[in-house]
Amino acid sequence: MLASMEYLLKADVLTLHPDLPRAEAVLVSGERIRAVGSVEDLRGIAPQAEVLDFGDRILTPGLTDAHIHLVNYGFRLSQVNLEGCSSVAEVQQRLREYALQHPEGWIVGGGYTITELGLSDYPARGLLDEVIPDRPVLLYSRDLHSAWANSLALKTAGLTDSTPDPEGGELVRVNGLLTGYLLESASERVQASIPAPTWEETLKAARLAVKTMRDFGYTAVHTMAYEPADHLRALMHLEQQGELPLRVWACIPHTELEHAIGLGLYGGHGDRVKLGGVKFFLDGALGSQTAWMLAPGYQNPQATPMILDQPELIRERAEKALQHGFIPTVHAIGDQANRVLLDLYEELKPLADQKGLHLRLEHAQHLSPQDIVRFGELQVTASMQPVHLIGDARLVRELVPHLEDGTYAVRSLKQAGALLAFGSDGPVASPDPRLSFEAATKRLGLDGAPFSPQECLTAEETLWAHTRGPALAVGWEDYGIIREGARADFTLWDTLGGKREALTFPR
Amino acid sequence: MLASMEYLLKADVLTLHPDLPRAEAVLVSGERIRAVGSVEDLRGIAPQAEVLDFGDRILTPGLTDAHIHLVNYGFRLSQVNLEGCSSVAEVQQRLREYALQHPEGWIVGGGYTITELGLSDYPARGLLDEVIPDRPVLLYSRDLHSAWANSLALKTAGLTDSTPDPEGGELVRVNGLLTGYLLESASERVQASIPAPTWEETLKAARLAVKTMRDFGYTAVHTMAYEPADHLRALMHLEQQGELPLRVWACIPHTELEHAIGLGLYGGHGDRVKLGGVKFFLDGALGSQTAWMLAPGYQNPQATPMILDQPELIRERAEKALQHGFIPTVHAIGDQANRVLLDLYEELKPLADQKGLHLRLEHAQHLSPQDIVRFGELQVTASMQPVHLIGDARLVRELVPHLEDGTYAVRSLKQAGALLAFGSDGPVASPDPRLSFEAATKRLGLDGAPFSPQECLTAEETLWAHTRGPALAVGWEDYGIIREGARADFTLWDTLGGKREALTFPR
Repeated sequence: MLASMEYLLKADVLTLHPDLPRAEAVLVSGERIRAVGSVEDLRGIAPQAEVLDFGDRILTPGLTDAHIHLVNYGFRLSQVNLEGCSSVAEVQQRLREYALQHPEGWIVGGGYTITELGLSDYPARGLLDEVIPDRPVLLYSRDLHSAWANSLALKTAGLTDSTPDPEGGELVRVNGLLTGYLLESASERVQASIPAPTWEETLKAARLAVKTMRDFGYTAVHTMAYEPADHLRALMHLEQQGELPLRVWACIPHTELEHAIGLGLYGGHGDRVKLGGVKFFLDGALGSQTAWMLAPGYQNPQATPMILDQPELIRERAEKALQHGFIPTVHAIGDQANRVLLDLYEELKPLADQKGLHLRLEHAQHLSPQDIVRFGELQVTASMQPVHLIGDARLVRELVPHLEDGTYAVRSLKQAGALLAFGSDGPVASPDPRLSFEAATKRLGLDGAPFSPQECLTAEETLWAHTRGPALAVGWEDYGIIREGARADFTLWDTLGGKREALTFPR
Repeated sequence: MLASMEYLLKADVLTLHPDLPRAEAVLVSGERIRAVGSVEDLRGIAPQAEVLDFGDRILTPGLTDAHIHLVNYGFRLSQVNLEGCSSVAEVQQRLREYALQHPEGWIVGGGYTITELGLSDYPARGLLDEVIPDRPVLLYSRDLHSAWANSLALKTAGLTDSTPDPEGGELVRVNGLLTGYLLESASERVQASIPAPTWEETLKAARLAVKTMRDFGYTAVHTMAYEPADHLRALMHLEQQGELPLRVWACIPHTELEHAIGLGLYGGHGDRVKLGGVKFFLDGALGSQTAWMLAPGYQNPQATPMILDQPELIRERAEKALQHGFIPTVHAIGDQANRVLLDLYEELKPLADQKGLHLRLEHAQHLSPQDIVRFGELQVTASMQPVHLIGDARLVRELVPHLEDGTYAVRSLKQAGALLAFGSDGPVASPDPRLSFEAATKRLGLDGAPFSPQECLTAEETLWAHTRGPALAVGWEDYGIIREGARADFTLWDTLGGKREALTFPR
């Protein structure tokens, strides 16, 4: 006989349901919420339900990360992590430990900041060769704009002292000899020498990502387009093995849309893994000065705004995507990119409405004041990552100071009626919810100075953007809310924005 | 508050579980079976469960049709049905009624048998023009080898008295004038003039098919590859609208396999609609003398065995399919086709085992005695349609009398250890379960004479091949059986093989 499938959860319940925002208890039956209310009422309904008493801990709908590269994040987790290293000796120590635990093949990782290693020049390969002479090593700096290779990695990639610098990059040399340090595109050839991960390695990365997200308290993620397709496949495989305690809304790259249509897929298909979005990239990023901005003078003379997918292509394919039930999910960082995309969404809005789908902008990072209201008028999803604000605060002040008020303008967007969906952009940033809540509620840069503090949200508002917001954005009406009939996926908190765990049913 | 999700079903329960083949009651919680046993025991477990008392009716696992073209069947259901017409007047009367109910566009349908219409020659277009002068009409004979068009249909297709006969067909003429009767391939040009169905029409056909299957008592189907992809898409759309009270295991055409892999799909993905198979066609059919047979002299001098997908292509793609979790699902009618396929499956068996997938032959219609044992050795699925036996009995005796014993040899296959999965091949045959049970248990041809009667199954064995067999064939361990933890999808019978209804939970 199966165990009873009814549970009565006692906690400080934050429902996110306007009719009954707080409650004492939730009755769960199978994988659904059967009732919400007082302990006494729910006991009367189901006297035999097993009681789970969480005392004064806070029970909320399950957390969603609305923008992550899930399996890439898993690979990152399985690489050597050099964040916070304050000396070469520390780098070497972490490499030694990692090599012992991972005894074969390439050693890849990073996260160090050059200026924090106490060196007078770029780090050199000899420092890596000292500890790892017999396996290739490639380590990226925290900002991903440079990398540090050992001698074997250079050799494996076929790089020699006489190799010319590639376009857009530099093989750092001293007296004409390679140092092993690689700026910008110079790391690409080494990267290309790393063998592609096997199916087993991809599965392992997927498992690690899922476990880590679960441990962070997440019950769902929106994962962006993958490269290669094995990333998505691994998640589907885990689902079928019963190893996916996370609901996944996934995007396909727009280059695959025709194939998805040819196969007969309707957007949103799936059980725990649902194929719902079609991913596009309109522009580049702030730091590399490749975002598409309105104001002149922003672009580095050597950089140009990267218009990756042409607006006309996006319009055409987004229309096709909508017709087949898929949600256009478009990366837009610069204020000009966001405006162009809003113009385009204005055209697509009637079709999106007819299909019951919310158009969606990823990042919506820098906005002109007059465009903010359009998010509400068009009922689009602003899929944003408050955690990026921490590192970007300084960059905004350096590069586009006039945009501070329109950068990560979450409160203004909320007031305008945009649908807020918060994520981490992992592995680009950590998906630790504590960081996202801190960034959204305090808006402090790395220097501790507040950044457009009038845009701060409350913890409850942040919670909404990590739960109900993402659910509505992808049409999951029965998700991200605690009410009768909704999915019994919860997060249980010691304090809101603080320590937490995921709690899903059936257990 | 949601209603209780626990039900206690009282009935004559046939579990298909060897440990407890019969029981008094089943306790259902949510969409799963919580316990099976005596009414008293189950009441003790769940005193509050709502009791559904079905008296002495028989409760079994839900019926599956393991081979259907589901949306094609829906289209067929929406066409004019001329089965059983015994005069031209009756044809005309049915056309008149259909035209009133369906007031626009083409009228397409069929099912009549020429020799039963009381005519001395092929039917002529004038008989159709009398009742439908202003809309094109195309009616197929029951065997699909000929068709009857009205004048407007001929005109719309651009066929005139001077149009030459196409290859493999004849535009029947009298004194050089078109009669409107079309033999074999001659109907293709008229068929091609019918506008492709719209998305709304496809949805309507899908809804009609689903409703009809449900009314027949089915809870699941295995639907074969579709043309066009909108068929599959319509089912996915219905699922998301909550309009799919049927579990669907679907095949994609092998020509789409690369796209499915490129998208990152893993075979079996989905919730109620699961994409699990890759469909191939090895040979043709018995009636058209295009099956691939061992014995010489079977083929019509004008016909050749149609080897549609070359064995080498099937081997390559089936291997790729297995690697990505898809089940190769191959049409094989002739004894030679089945042998070639078994040879090929012998090679693929280790990979299939590693992936936990059952290779599968669709139809397995004519088998050499020495090949029957191989079905057991290779643990392959024999996906068969007993209902075809009724019409094929005469053909077998005419064309391949030496094969009677190896034709629809279901008992021998079962004894050899093959996994039997029964379907209807709808719309080629009716999915009415009564017909399938009768064919499998009595094996009577249209003339009432028994056909290899030693191959008869009992009703219980037939039930297994319509429930547990199909479930195991596609890896649904928790389906097609009544035991703790299994899905609560049932069929409720007045008598086994007789009147029945589907019963699924949550209701």
